[in-house]
Amino acid sequence: MKTYFGGKFDVVVIGAGHAGCEAALASARLGMKTLVATMSLESIAMMPCNPNVGGTAKGHLVREIDALGGEMGKNIDKTFIQSRMLNTSKGPAVHSLRAQADKHSYTREMKKVLESEDNIYLKQVEVISIEVEEGEVKGIITKNGAYYETKAVILATGTYLKGRIIIGETSYYGGPNGLVPAMDLSQSILNLGIKLRRFKTGTPARVKRSSVDFSKMIEQCGDERIIPFSFTNSNLEKEQISCYLTYTNEKTHNIIKENIDRSPMYNGSIEGIGPRYCPSIEDKIMRFPDKLQHQIFVEPEGEDTEELYIGGMSSSMPEDVQIAMYRTIPGLENCEFMRSAYAIEYDSVDPTELKLSLEFKKVNGLFGAGQFNGTSGYEEAASQGLIAGINASRKIKNQEPFILRRSDAYIGVLIDDLVTKGTNEPYRMMTSRAEYRLLLRQDNADLRLTELGREIGLVDDHRYNIFVERKAKLEAELERIKNLQITNKKEVNEFLEQLDSVALKKPISLYELIKRPELNYRVVEPLDAEREVLPIDIIDQIDIIAKYEGYIQKQLEQVEQFKKIENRLIDKDLDYSDVYGLRTEAIQKLNKFKPMNIGQASRISGVSPADISVLMIYLEQKKKQNKQK
Amino acid sequence: MKTYFGGKFDVVVIGAGHAGCEAALASARLGMKTLVATMSLESIAMMPCNPNVGGTAKGHLVREIDALGGEMGKNIDKTFIQSRMLNTSKGPAVHSLRAQADKHSYTREMKKVLESEDNIYLKQVEVISIEVEEGEVKGIITKNGAYYETKAVILATGTYLKGRIIIGETSYYGGPNGLVPAMDLSQSILNLGIKLRRFKTGTPARVKRSSVDFSKMIEQCGDERIIPFSFTNSNLEKEQISCYLTYTNEKTHNIIKENIDRSPMYNGSIEGIGPRYCPSIEDKIMRFPDKLQHQIFVEPEGEDTEELYIGGMSSSMPEDVQIAMYRTIPGLENCEFMRSAYAIEYDSVDPTELKLSLEFKKVNGLFGAGQFNGTSGYEEAASQGLIAGINASRKIKNQEPFILRRSDAYIGVLIDDLVTKGTNEPYRMMTSRAEYRLLLRQDNADLRLTELGREIGLVDDHRYNIFVERKAKLEAELERIKNLQITNKKEVNEFLEQLDSVALKKPISLYELIKRPELNYRVVEPLDAEREVLPIDIIDQIDIIAKYEGYIQKQLEQVEQFKKIENRLIDKDLDYSDVYGLRTEAIQKLNKFKPMNIGQASRISGVSPADISVLMIYLEQKKKQNKQK
Repeated sequence: MKTYFGGKFDVVVIGAGHAGCEAALASARLGMKTLVATMSLESIAMMPCNPNVGGTAKGHLVREIDALGGEMGKNIDKTFIQSRMLNTSKGPAVHSLRAQADKHSYTREMKKVLESEDNIYLKQVEVISIEVEEGEVKGIITKNGAYYETKAVILATGTYLKGRIIIGETSYYGGPNGLVPAMDLSQSILNLGIKLRRFKTGTPARVKRSSVDFSKMIEQCGDERIIPFSFTNSNLEKEQISCYLTYTNEKTHNIIKENIDRSPMYNGSIEGIGPRYCPSIEDKIMRFPDKLQHQIFVEPEGEDTEELYIGGMSSSMPEDVQIAMYRTIPGLENCEFMRSAYAIEYDSVDPTELKLSLEFKKVNGLFGAGQFNGTSGYEEAASQGLIAGINASRKIKNQEPFILRRSDAYIGVLIDDLVTKGTNEPYRMMTSRAEYRLLLRQDNADLRLTELGREIGLVDDHRYNIFVERKAKLEAELERIKNLQITNKKEVNEFLEQLDSVALKKPISLYELIKRPELNYRVVEPLDAEREVLPIDIIDQIDIIAKYEGYIQKQLEQVEQFKKIENRLIDKDLDYSDVYGLRTEAIQKLNKFKPMNIGQASRISGVSPADISVLMIYLEQKKKQNKQK
Repeated sequence: MKTYFGGKFDVVVIGAGHAGCEAALASARLGMKTLVATMSLESIAMMPCNPNVGGTAKGHLVREIDALGGEMGKNIDKTFIQSRMLNTSKGPAVHSLRAQADKHSYTREMKKVLESEDNIYLKQVEVISIEVEEGEVKGIITKNGAYYETKAVILATGTYLKGRIIIGETSYYGGPNGLVPAMDLSQSILNLGIKLRRFKTGTPARVKRSSVDFSKMIEQCGDERIIPFSFTNSNLEKEQISCYLTYTNEKTHNIIKENIDRSPMYNGSIEGIGPRYCPSIEDKIMRFPDKLQHQIFVEPEGEDTEELYIGGMSSSMPEDVQIAMYRTIPGLENCEFMRSAYAIEYDSVDPTELKLSLEFKKVNGLFGAGQFNGTSGYEEAASQGLIAGINASRKIKNQEPFILRRSDAYIGVLIDDLVTKGTNEPYRMMTSRAEYRLLLRQDNADLRLTELGREIGLVDDHRYNIFVERKAKLEAELERIKNLQITNKKEVNEFLEQLDSVALKKPISLYELIKRPELNYRVVEPLDAEREVLPIDIIDQIDIIAKYEGYIQKQLEQVEQFKKIENRLIDKDLDYSDVYGLRTEAIQKLNKFKPMNIGQASRISGVSPADISVLMIYLEQKKKQNKQK
């Protein structure tokens, strides 16, 4: 109930999780007076599930957020307790950084960042209604009766909307981690003509460290050389804490199979759709009955807590079944639960209701971000938050929306996938989703995106100077080693022989030389007397550029080729039934999704390459006609 | 619903606030396998209201808890951001230590302490039922269906039981600080024949630091010499953070008066009874209409947060009225709310249902502690938690209950008041409640109680050695200065003259000399060549003992006299209607409260000194009869 006028804002962000925080910071830093409405000031940037940031493909997202001037990378650098570069045995495209977080510190530090931003007004209030007039956002109303006028609203409600907790036969309305759910806002969203659907996610139990026998597990230490997430950090020192690896076994699987009728996932009491790539343990056992074991990662929740996260053991089984199955796992035989595993169902939106800017098609000034948009994962949420925050601000300033292409960033892939294809389950980023993954590496996120972040206005001088310096150093060194001729004299060839590398028959540049698989920039130092000391990240970059030059070049050409058609804009008012030659399914889908450009049109499922050709011809004709007019 | 057997415990503590934490630690340290059931592992020892520990009379409680081996003092010493000894312009009986806390750190540190205690099993579960057979506690049942067998249960539910939040016209079920309430347990308690009643408390708004103009307020700095709460800490160093003092004024009062019809306290929508000595601002204005201003204390909620607590402005007014009235206060003209003030109603018990051991009279093995017992304040809660934890353990070990007398400790006064007199509103400790307050000083809490804590088993060697050493040093020095004769020679008298102290006519001990108001142990150092360096707290102690010897001696005699009758035990099965000569009201009250001894009987309201005489005669006769048998 609206009882009083609370004030006037440019942007209201509903929710202060990973999406909400990035959205609010981006909006505020771009000059918008931003209200952040959260149900709990104690739970800002809370990690209700895994105690880590990054990982395969997700690490890429974090570095992209950072390169654009976002906060996640900086915050995990402040609060990590272990850091690892994953997949280093594979190619550089899939190298992914992951850091274990101290959960409480992560929350506390992010709250500090939000609090110190002048344009942010952080309030513990529950939003119960979004006020819209003639298709345009006008304000919000809180449970305590305050009406706040605003030009834009960003919905970043995570798993709070009509959150329902399910543990076996027990279920009740509840938010994540024992917090209160938001019970009223869903109806207000439905009233706007926006459909909601139930998605589901879950989290494993937390067990007491002193009840675990680590001698039966495999220790996983942090990297000796810590690579920061944020490009603004050059060196991080930390005494790291170990994680542990263990496995399920036949006993675990039998307990699950014997009790599967008590699983709410299988007896029908869960209606929400869960994440395919982050399934519960019972899902894994039932879907892959031949698999004899599953990996279980035991991760500390912080640097001084007894709570351990049991990664891979998410479950909605009854508590007694949970305890029984956990205790079959080597090292967990006597484990004591501190929190049970649970599933949580929540209202989310079909992301095809959104534009690439993350604004709702139906409501001007209303944006969606994060889990509410149908994703899973802190990094996916933060990515969208950043983009929604940027675009809410740009909309208010009458600027074009900021849209990353699939060839620019994983963030571009993420949003394009969501908005164009939609998703029938919580969407998780994977390297396989990116067609240009050799270009979209985590190591070059700054080179790809910092200039863009600067143009938008989120990259401050400090960050920009670091970037410019790094880029200049890299380019200068590449130039130098391309011009540095290594002759085929005796000493050189003797040196190469020591490294099992074939002798030179004619002079060759150092750059060309280090393309050889057995060589790299570091080992050829004896051939390079004038070399200056460079930061490790630049040395790595040089190796990658030299070694993968051919592949990278090929992908760049593909991008260029695609851009030509990709960028062909389509009038958003186009009625596709006017386009002669399109198949009926294509007409329906295109009219439904109203793609912004040919690239987007081509990725709508049900739109064939032939349809795209027809569309291209139509647009070409139209263009000519317009010119003739 | 009970679905499985979760395990066997000695003691289950329901709640992990200030009462629950002390109860659990005492129980576990006394060897009991202790389950701590909390609704939120993030909210252990949470401070939902004021960000400080101690204060007038409350500081005494904390030092007593510490002397007995409790945790509160140690925890605030780890996490304080400002420390002050209050009332230093008054006598030593009312000197009270108070420290501002970093709220998050306080929670985090206390969680660590609980986690590191081997006998504590900390679980995020909601208890929905207490299982009792034949008047004896047998177990508890959680929301997830676990049945835990136990020999004792300590109810320390704070404001969670059917918690209801009220902000003007808005009200809903909710726990403190936006957390979920416990909706099911009340019915289970009622089923045991225990009556519940609604009490109410409230908290002011939190405002953003950067929106406050401190230049219009009076700065309150911490003490230069920091006195630790815990007797185990000798020195604490900290860069302290200031608090600020400001005042309400006519404008504030007018806004409240104009809107009083919208106050749920005055329009009847709050049924719970609030704390008289910690009232809401609207209560203060309406009850003391002649008072032109009220003190407002502005206190930081932590060392790096923007949130400021506005002490004295607790309210259940509608949010718009709150904002309007806060903004009339000097320095708060432009204040931004981060959290609104609210009132909270909750189920609590009539403490006359309890014995002095804090065990329920009706249910063997069931104990109550903290706000649930009808008190207000973290320190009052912690005190009871400690005693309930000790007595649950002693009951299980078939030991006599541990009961502190009114002459032993403020904790004794607190529990005796509650259990004997009951309370019609949330009970708060005050120095005026203690009849022997010159004995029960905060500075001598260790001398009063550490031996008792040692006997109970809560004082470890480390603490005991510190205590023994301190005591020995004090006694030795007192002995030395009592024997040190100061002669009336010329140099001495010249020295005394400088200090405006009259000349000696005959020799006198140094001890006697420092009784003079204008002198103290420190200033007479030039007369005392053999003096060794002593810790400041011992020096203070010497001064107090010397200067107040007469008064202290008198109170000690009163105590001795009273103990004689106080300690006369009364058979708990005594039917007072058999006692010829008692007035009807006295019979009813005595049969209702079943006092343990004459002391308790004498403090029951409605029992007159004449009734006590009658009772004494009866008991005397009975004793003779028994001897004759």
